[in-house]
Amino acid sequence: MSYVRSFGASRVPVGEVSKPLLGGKGAGLATMSRLGLPVPPGFTITTDASGYFMLNDGAWPSGLKEEVAAAVSSLEAASGKTFGDVNDPLLVSVRSGAAVSMPGMMDTVLNLGLNRDTAAALAKASGDPRFAWDSYRRFVQMYGDIVLGIHYTQFARAEEAFVDGRTVEDLDAAELQELSRNLEKVVADAGRAFPADPHEQLHHAIDAVFSSYNSHRARYYRKTNNIPDDAGTAVNIQAMVFGNHGQSSGTGVAFTRNPKNGAPGLFGEWLRNAQGEDVVAGTRTPNRIGSDGSGATLEEVMPEQHAELVRVSALLEEHFTDMQDIEFTIESGTLYLLQTRTGKRSASAAVRIAVDLANAGSIDIDTALGRIQPEELELVMRPVINPDAKRKVIAKGLDASPGAACGRVVFHSSDVQEYFERDEPTVLVRLDTSPEDIQGMTVAQGVLTSRGGQTSHAAVVARGMGKPCVVGCTEIQVDYGRQLFYAGDTVVRKGDWITIDGGTGDVMEGKVEMLAPDTEQGAMTELLEWADKKARLEVRANADNGADATRARELGAVGIGLCRTEHMFFQPDALRAMRRMILAEDPHARQRALTDILPVQRAMFIEIFEAMADLPVTIRLLDPPLHEFLPSREDDIAEVAQDLGVRTDALRNRIEQLEEANPMLGHRGVRVGITSPEVYRMQVRAIFEAACEVSKRGIVVLPEVMIPLVALPAELERTREEATEVAEAVLVEFDVRLKYTIGTMIEIPRAALLAEQVAKHADFFSFGTNDLTQLTYGFSRDDMNKFFPDYQRLGLLPDSPLSVFDIEGVGQLVKLGTEGGKRGNPRLKVGICGEHGGDPTGVRFFHKTGLDYVSCSPYRVPVARLAAAHAALGI
Amino acid sequence: MSYVRSFGASRVPVGEVSKPLLGGKGAGLATMSRLGLPVPPGFTITTDASGYFMLNDGAWPSGLKEEVAAAVSSLEAASGKTFGDVNDPLLVSVRSGAAVSMPGMMDTVLNLGLNRDTAAALAKASGDPRFAWDSYRRFVQMYGDIVLGIHYTQFARAEEAFVDGRTVEDLDAAELQELSRNLEKVVADAGRAFPADPHEQLHHAIDAVFSSYNSHRARYYRKTNNIPDDAGTAVNIQAMVFGNHGQSSGTGVAFTRNPKNGAPGLFGEWLRNAQGEDVVAGTRTPNRIGSDGSGATLEEVMPEQHAELVRVSALLEEHFTDMQDIEFTIESGTLYLLQTRTGKRSASAAVRIAVDLANAGSIDIDTALGRIQPEELELVMRPVINPDAKRKVIAKGLDASPGAACGRVVFHSSDVQEYFERDEPTVLVRLDTSPEDIQGMTVAQGVLTSRGGQTSHAAVVARGMGKPCVVGCTEIQVDYGRQLFYAGDTVVRKGDWITIDGGTGDVMEGKVEMLAPDTEQGAMTELLEWADKKARLEVRANADNGADATRARELGAVGIGLCRTEHMFFQPDALRAMRRMILAEDPHARQRALTDILPVQRAMFIEIFEAMADLPVTIRLLDPPLHEFLPSREDDIAEVAQDLGVRTDALRNRIEQLEEANPMLGHRGVRVGITSPEVYRMQVRAIFEAACEVSKRGIVVLPEVMIPLVALPAELERTREEATEVAEAVLVEFDVRLKYTIGTMIEIPRAALLAEQVAKHADFFSFGTNDLTQLTYGFSRDDMNKFFPDYQRLGLLPDSPLSVFDIEGVGQLVKLGTEGGKRGNPRLKVGICGEHGGDPTGVRFFHKTGLDYVSCSPYRVPVARLAAAHAALGI
Repeated sequence: MSYVRSFGASRVPVGEVSKPLLGGKGAGLATMSRLGLPVPPGFTITTDASGYFMLNDGAWPSGLKEEVAAAVSSLEAASGKTFGDVNDPLLVSVRSGAAVSMPGMMDTVLNLGLNRDTAAALAKASGDPRFAWDSYRRFVQMYGDIVLGIHYTQFARAEEAFVDGRTVEDLDAAELQELSRNLEKVVADAGRAFPADPHEQLHHAIDAVFSSYNSHRARYYRKTNNIPDDAGTAVNIQAMVFGNHGQSSGTGVAFTRNPKNGAPGLFGEWLRNAQGEDVVAGTRTPNRIGSDGSGATLEEVMPEQHAELVRVSALLEEHFTDMQDIEFTIESGTLYLLQTRTGKRSASAAVRIAVDLANAGSIDIDTALGRIQPEELELVMRPVINPDAKRKVIAKGLDASPGAACGRVVFHSSDVQEYFERDEPTVLVRLDTSPEDIQGMTVAQGVLTSRGGQTSHAAVVARGMGKPCVVGCTEIQVDYGRQLFYAGDTVVRKGDWITIDGGTGDVMEGKVEMLAPDTEQGAMTELLEWADKKARLEVRANADNGADATRARELGAVGIGLCRTEHMFFQPDALRAMRRMILAEDPHARQRALTDILPVQRAMFIEIFEAMADLPVTIRLLDPPLHEFLPSREDDIAEVAQDLGVRTDALRNRIEQLEEANPMLGHRGVRVGITSPEVYRMQVRAIFEAACEVSKRGIVVLPEVMIPLVALPAELERTREEATEVAEAVLVEFDVRLKYTIGTMIEIPRAALLAEQVAKHADFFSFGTNDLTQLTYGFSRDDMNKFFPDYQRLGLLPDSPLSVFDIEGVGQLVKLGTEGGKRGNPRLKVGICGEHGGDPTGVRFFHKTGLDYVSCSPYRVPVARLAAAHAALGI
Repeated sequence: MSYVRSFGASRVPVGEVSKPLLGGKGAGLATMSRLGLPVPPGFTITTDASGYFMLNDGAWPSGLKEEVAAAVSSLEAASGKTFGDVNDPLLVSVRSGAAVSMPGMMDTVLNLGLNRDTAAALAKASGDPRFAWDSYRRFVQMYGDIVLGIHYTQFARAEEAFVDGRTVEDLDAAELQELSRNLEKVVADAGRAFPADPHEQLHHAIDAVFSSYNSHRARYYRKTNNIPDDAGTAVNIQAMVFGNHGQSSGTGVAFTRNPKNGAPGLFGEWLRNAQGEDVVAGTRTPNRIGSDGSGATLEEVMPEQHAELVRVSALLEEHFTDMQDIEFTIESGTLYLLQTRTGKRSASAAVRIAVDLANAGSIDIDTALGRIQPEELELVMRPVINPDAKRKVIAKGLDASPGAACGRVVFHSSDVQEYFERDEPTVLVRLDTSPEDIQGMTVAQGVLTSRGGQTSHAAVVARGMGKPCVVGCTEIQVDYGRQLFYAGDTVVRKGDWITIDGGTGDVMEGKVEMLAPDTEQGAMTELLEWADKKARLEVRANADNGADATRARELGAVGIGLCRTEHMFFQPDALRAMRRMILAEDPHARQRALTDILPVQRAMFIEIFEAMADLPVTIRLLDPPLHEFLPSREDDIAEVAQDLGVRTDALRNRIEQLEEANPMLGHRGVRVGITSPEVYRMQVRAIFEAACEVSKRGIVVLPEVMIPLVALPAELERTREEATEVAEAVLVEFDVRLKYTIGTMIEIPRAALLAEQVAKHADFFSFGTNDLTQLTYGFSRDDMNKFFPDYQRLGLLPDSPLSVFDIEGVGQLVKLGTEGGKRGNPRLKVGICGEHGGDPTGVRFFHKTGLDYVSCSPYRVPVARLAAAHAALGI
């Protein structure tokens, strides 16, 4: 068994390129060699060796030592240099390279092979003694720290004493040589010997790389990123090349396409006469790669090398069939490639690159679809924080609705309006939000609340609006009275600027630079068309009004899966009538109030039906308990009483009467439909009057009436009969024929358990996974923030089941419900309209479970469409 | 096919006695004939005939007419009398008799065969013209009403006009004869012919009986009692015998044993020279059957006939192997039996009779166990309303805890105490109860609340105490301020007497006579010992203190299945410390407060462990949310703040902080155990310190620690580890070894769904079916009264699933949970400790599902023991 694979020399036999065996970096180097690209020669010690090392207390597997020695010999032959040679010494870099990248987690040693003698040789050979002694100084320090385990502060102290107020940059070659002796002494004083023999240096450096894989931080990183511990790391030993070898040298980083927007063409930066470190350190400002007329670009300075880089990039992209991130160095006019890897990119770029590559025939459509994570699509449509922007994060909450927003802090919806009229953007900051805040939320750039979870009012509404939102930010204390909030030591007052990032939960001081969303979303549209062809699940949207329905349709929804009617009752006129109905003392007054609500609802249904011509619209009848329509604050009560012309006492009594210990489990949904059938009758009439009116204009209307909160088959049977009666009556009145269906939400565990019986009275099921999850867990979304943060901290529950669908638990009920439902009614259509309709984990499960459609917020429709394709493709 | 079966004549062939075919009455008559007992001859038209009649618009099946004619001839032969004979006419009764008794629902015609001529003959033959003409008058009226369908008020008007201020009883024979002519005229005026021909009379009377089976009230009765419509009714035609045929005649009703307490020996009443009607009408006071020295008993007046009745009774009881209810008539010294049926009896009597019959070898033990409905056993231990007592029901609520209670109305616990000290019984009347009312509930005779359901605080606590209780009595309006309640027009003030029946939900004005419970419960004890031998399910009790545990053990519980610890926190000292803990601002203050609670809990555990020596005791760690321990009323807050030495503001803030939108789904149970682990640690320490102390005294202690409200396997894993750590530490400190187990409540749907994983961390499961039912239905017991009455009225949900276990829905979760649990841990013990542990429907299901035990209120233990035997016997 061989633990060593050489690369970069033409004589090297080309072996199998296995990323698990060679690590990411090693595999890249091997591939480039294979493609005949200019790679400084070297060799890779495979991950197997580090596995042996870890299992055997730091011992090397037998034969490794000999293989390394042989590989070094080959390397010497390939490079024409020799370890320890006092004329032209071989110097190498020793770098770790795990199969899965663990950035910054593991160690690197550069310039290995230097000692006093070879440093002097380097000085002579390079004609740059300062460079040589500076390299040696760096090497002593790096090796002492990483290989010998001497804390870097000890070197820093010695350096400080030596420079005595100057900086290392101020030192000349002789001084650097002297400094290196002092640093050697730090090593000696620590009781460690600094090996002069490059072979010995190499052996220990390899040990150090192996060990770094087991460092605390590396183990922690693997744990949090779900990387198995036994994957191991490879070690790459490579001849050093120097970009700081004069004016015909340089170093840089290039992407084969623009990583911010995916535009084709080489994109990157370089520095003339510099080493990689200089680019990273930021002491000099790098120049662009492609010509920009500045005279400093690679294209302008070294047109030949630039042309070679362009050629090489194209080859690499073609080989890897994806955009590459390439490190290169030019030493005395010769281009070397040091690394190639798949480049990180923005969501917009990812989409464009995948689509461009597919259209160019370099990947197939399934691969293009697989390249994009569904969640990324939401980011394509939102502004995001510029990754390079400076920021001061003052608090962190829950990432409720992605995208970044920047604006002046306001605490009340009315203030949002006021700023809006002055054309000033705002971020609405609240303890939590309620239906009264919807106006303000619509106009604000973003929303921040200190309370509530992923399905709090603020979160749900903001997602529905596609508005950036951070909720449950317990680190801030909101003081409405004084119109400010505290975040640690920071006080933020009304009118101050903040920036929030709804994709991370960050709350930042001031204005932070953002990247605007890509307004030309042609690539996304194309990608999603491909997705739709692959998907089996249909994607609908949750929308409560014509505007949302229109937006949903634009984003590709093929129907409305959930139109909540309660917001319609909150229209000022309707709300007043609704309150009159609740307070009515006799059936006539009750009926009169309902008659006043009907036209408001009908008008809203008309809007929606128009927007969704030819597509189905599922309308949920009234769901919340009646007390939600009555005021709760003492002064509101007085005001409402006056407005309605009733005694405050009477109103207060009725409110008390309707009070519930556990409103979530209370008198709502179909329970109201059973005890006050006239409410549902009014709603069904409004739906069908609207449907008839729109239908008469030649627009195809497909209403689906949905009864919420069913726990007993008999509840559905009864309300279905009543709804059918009203619907048929309206159709006769209008002399219209149209197809409609009646179904139910499955959101109570019992309905899922008794799905077979329930389905006998249903044309469709729509899983309401919000309530279903709450009841399955016995959690209330309004209260779970009292204990959930502890659960998360202790690792008991990494994600809220209200955000990430709980396949293990709630999934069982969805499965039982779907199977039972189809047994009870083979023609049953089954969908899901809870928050999880746009959660890719959920979508995959719903596909597998045999659902027919998912429904989610309009802005999640693209996410769900792609997730549905992924599910169908088994990605 | 023959539709007619004769009886009562020795020459009649004995056919099969089939109750569905002959009806109850007919089967009794046939059986008595078969046994050679003195039954007036007659014949039964089988239920088949009425079936044909109903399906064929009132036509008789072919052959029936001829069969009836033949049977009448036989009857004439057997009785020696002839229809229409002017010397000694045959008179018959025509009675319906369905297979399942429908008391008062169907019609009877007596004295059929009378007309002007035969009445005159009867006058002569009987030597009692008044009797004869009175019989004729009654017959015209009865026949006119029932057979001819003339409203009885028309006869009443004619009668009124005739008597002219007198009563019918004042009329002599001639006047009665004249009256009968007037009544004949009523028939003629109604356009109907009164048939003189007895054969014709009979034909129409049979038609009338057939038709009465289809009357509105009979159909309604069948519907509400689940009797199939096609069962049909038999018709019994029987020669009349007359108990009013002079001093050697009489009539009566006898039970073969005492129906009130089951004591052996004939028990009943009779009237000399009277007809059955007279006994029913109550115009004369009947005398006893057995000698009581009054000289009026049957034994004293007619010793021979009495001896015959005793002999016959014994025969009938032996034949039917159960206590019989017999109707008899003595005509001129000859005893005739008119009916025998299984006698109704009190619960106590039922138990005693079943046990006595089994001990006498007349039935086997399985049959004896099957004769008693489990629910009856609870009544054996409680006072009940005397069925004969007069009462005025002023309202009806839910039957929350059986037994009757009578006392003065009080509205506050403190008043209960005051009356108690004056030795005055009370009924505590509240809107609803809270833990503060427990003291008062303990002392009051019974509890009545206007709110709440079967598992409201009042209901649960009262059942636990074995105290009569009516809850959810929405028909009363309680006014605490004025210390009174309204029930319709009635105003009941503090100090007024009321009686409540917790077995029916009735609320009655004043003192209603009650039957004391049978204090000598030897028969029940014997029956339950038999039951235990048959049952597989063990029965434990829910008990929170030593006294309840002792009572539970007396009632046969073989362990405590649920010891709730929250009541222990409500002990005054503990409550104060608990509040200090909740308000503590640092961990030390928190720990100090917990240290003060520990000894209170330990003392209570010691009591329980002592009471349950050798038996397992399952102790549930703290379940309710912390806010339940803080005051809610504004003046209580001020008082508590002062008591604890904190600022009222600070206390109010903390209360607000702990407030929850849906406390049932809130921060409680294991969630508190996770976020405040010190609370559970203190409780586990108290349990094991108590266990060690008791164990050191040589008493075997078997503690089982139960973690409530688990939804995630990880919750149990973590709390189990902590509990084990504390338990082991205490055992080491005390140097005691004892067996203990740690398990969990399964009361969250997800825990049932993930039972396999949960069971890996559990020694036992105990289904908490209260919460499990609420979550499965999405109902809250505190709120469901807002819609449940409508659901009941509309027939959507006949019983609250909180009272009667929901096998269809919740049962699926119990099954999944049990199966999954035993897969995850084959040695898992599985029980149930919700309210349904004592519900026989539930018990049958839990047996079938393979549970190991049920646990219920101490007073339900006998019920559950018998139900467990029934389940095992498949009864």
